[in-house]
Amino acid sequence: MKKVTVLGAGLVGKLIAIDLSESFAVTAIDHDANALEQLARHPKIKTKKADLSVEGTVRKLVADSDLVVGAVPGSMGFKVVREVIEAGRNMVDISFFPEDAFELDDLAKNNNCCIVTDCGVAPGMGNLILGYHNEKMRVKSFKCLVGGLPFKREWPWEYKAVFSPIDVIEEYTRPARYVQNGDIVVREALSDPELIHFENVGTLEAWNSDGLRSLIKTMGVPNMIEKTLRYPGTIEYLRVLRDTGYFSHEKINIDGVKIKPIDLTSKLLFSKWKLKPGEKEFTVMRVEVEGLQNGLKKCLVYDLFDEFDDEKGFTSMARTTGYTCTAVANILLKGKYSRKGINPPEFLGKDADCFNFVFEYLKERGVVYKVNMNK
Amino acid sequence: MKKVTVLGAGLVGKLIAIDLSESFAVTAIDHDANALEQLARHPKIKTKKADLSVEGTVRKLVADSDLVVGAVPGSMGFKVVREVIEAGRNMVDISFFPEDAFELDDLAKNNNCCIVTDCGVAPGMGNLILGYHNEKMRVKSFKCLVGGLPFKREWPWEYKAVFSPIDVIEEYTRPARYVQNGDIVVREALSDPELIHFENVGTLEAWNSDGLRSLIKTMGVPNMIEKTLRYPGTIEYLRVLRDTGYFSHEKINIDGVKIKPIDLTSKLLFSKWKLKPGEKEFTVMRVEVEGLQNGLKKCLVYDLFDEFDDEKGFTSMARTTGYTCTAVANILLKGKYSRKGINPPEFLGKDADCFNFVFEYLKERGVVYKVNMNK
Repeated sequence: MKKVTVLGAGLVGKLIAIDLSESFAVTAIDHDANALEQLARHPKIKTKKADLSVEGTVRKLVADSDLVVGAVPGSMGFKVVREVIEAGRNMVDISFFPEDAFELDDLAKNNNCCIVTDCGVAPGMGNLILGYHNEKMRVKSFKCLVGGLPFKREWPWEYKAVFSPIDVIEEYTRPARYVQNGDIVVREALSDPELIHFENVGTLEAWNSDGLRSLIKTMGVPNMIEKTLRYPGTIEYLRVLRDTGYFSHEKINIDGVKIKPIDLTSKLLFSKWKLKPGEKEFTVMRVEVEGLQNGLKKCLVYDLFDEFDDEKGFTSMARTTGYTCTAVANILLKGKYSRKGINPPEFLGKDADCFNFVFEYLKERGVVYKVNMNK
Repeated sequence: MKKVTVLGAGLVGKLIAIDLSESFAVTAIDHDANALEQLARHPKIKTKKADLSVEGTVRKLVADSDLVVGAVPGSMGFKVVREVIEAGRNMVDISFFPEDAFELDDLAKNNNCCIVTDCGVAPGMGNLILGYHNEKMRVKSFKCLVGGLPFKREWPWEYKAVFSPIDVIEEYTRPARYVQNGDIVVREALSDPELIHFENVGTLEAWNSDGLRSLIKTMGVPNMIEKTLRYPGTIEYLRVLRDTGYFSHEKINIDGVKIKPIDLTSKLLFSKWKLKPGEKEFTVMRVEVEGLQNGLKKCLVYDLFDEFDDEKGFTSMARTTGYTCTAVANILLKGKYSRKGINPPEFLGKDADCFNFVFEYLKERGVVYKVNMNK
């Protein structure tokens, strides 16, 4: 039975370990004993407590794995991927680190590793979809809208952090890049808000976030943009915090002690953004691909609406991100994809079999993308 | 020539010293050398640098004054008034301290002092107006709306602090009391916002602030409320800060150092709220008094709109607060009012001569209240 090591047993890592344990020998590793405890109940899953931030730890722990899954916070993701490559293992990663994954491309090729990065819902599924259609048509424009939200709106934030909260604040501060007529445009985060209506959800507010990532380099598409979704009005409050200086990383002297405003802000917002036990949330995503196929104008719209899984206790963000990751893990473990080097999901998308396998795999787990053509 | 000591040479204290120096021998005292420097240019004004927070300092400095004016921040106001009474001097105070001035009433009577507190525009003029009409009619309701605002609105705060900024934040946090059918109602600050239109200004937002102060005790009026005015929308942002915890006085541990969120908030907001040199601001105030006079329903509305004095370099808040204070200072120095003990302005208002003198004095300086009857 093939061995899979899952690094990180958080909201998403937990689901990944459980799902893969159906067909593989899974070892889940985290520094948080509580997180591991929940997994230890699963007879098929081995758990191990370790601090993955310590240099060399990952290299040692993954040495005999057939595949490694990276589900650690973005801040340590790049380092973890590097160590997995140094250990010569194949990997699927969802840590969404800020660094450029392609800096590890040569190392991965030299060590004969197949590494799939950004392999969640967003980034992830948008990349897969664009990669697939870019092979079949001349894509003129790509637009990806995505958000994870609680059903219950609580003023003022009307939001719950369904992944590492510090990475959420990153989205609100990191300058957002999009591509317009072939040029990269850089705008501040939270800019260009627009109201967009979604059938099952209602009207949400979409704003610029820096989510295109690898697509900016890998696709020659002249118009590409990614926007994040929130309940209308709440991003205005975030702008107020930013404008007033609450997101600043510059230390301020307060009666002799020095602190970064962003650190206090994180403390305060994390407690407000904490998902309550059993609190219901959903994921909404829309991917639009437009272009010319055989000289004819073609437009495809992929719509996803997914809810919290009450029975299994999985958040929707864990489902939509984790099952995408496990689908690709299966592809690699079954030898259906093995390109050496760094592979963002748009590379897998070029392969129709891989593309179709992922959607089938997600569908079996209730994560359904509705596709409309020439809408 | 009678001697007047002005304690505090800030935005308002400066104007008070200059205005009184026309007819009296003024000594201005402050711990801030820069503030004093501007006054030192006036040939008629003596300046003295001293830390008034040090116990005993005030007692010593006011010993030979015919009248003392208190224009220090609210936090030290009560202590300063106490020391002036201990020195047996008469006083007019505008420091708006949170403590109950009447705790000093017996001391003032025993020391044979006439002390007028809260003697600015608000608190101050509203009290004077209510005190006057309450003698002539059965007042059923009193409403006071007041705000000091910059002409230029800069998102998000659209506000500049025209008095001690920490006292401004106090307004946003201290529970607000009003009187309804004879009962005291306590509501959180920033509550019950309503849009109200003003001729020269446009539409502003009024919300509950704790401005009735002495009136709650001194007047038997069954309905009394005071509200503060801001540009519409900005108080919502203040509610967001409060709800998120940025106004909290509880220390929070951030990477080993402990700070009160309110202290960071003050730091950040003060820099945003700083009035730029020569920046134009205005004061808007509306006082409504309703009741029965000789069995007939009567309603009076006092409207004030006052602007920054470019020529003299006085803010409107300094003009409307400071000239009210200097008017009453003149009344005391001329022996036209001498009741021993603590006297909020509603007590002076009972005396028609004092009441009319104040309005005449303000009018001569361009601070004009338009009165409408049965409006």
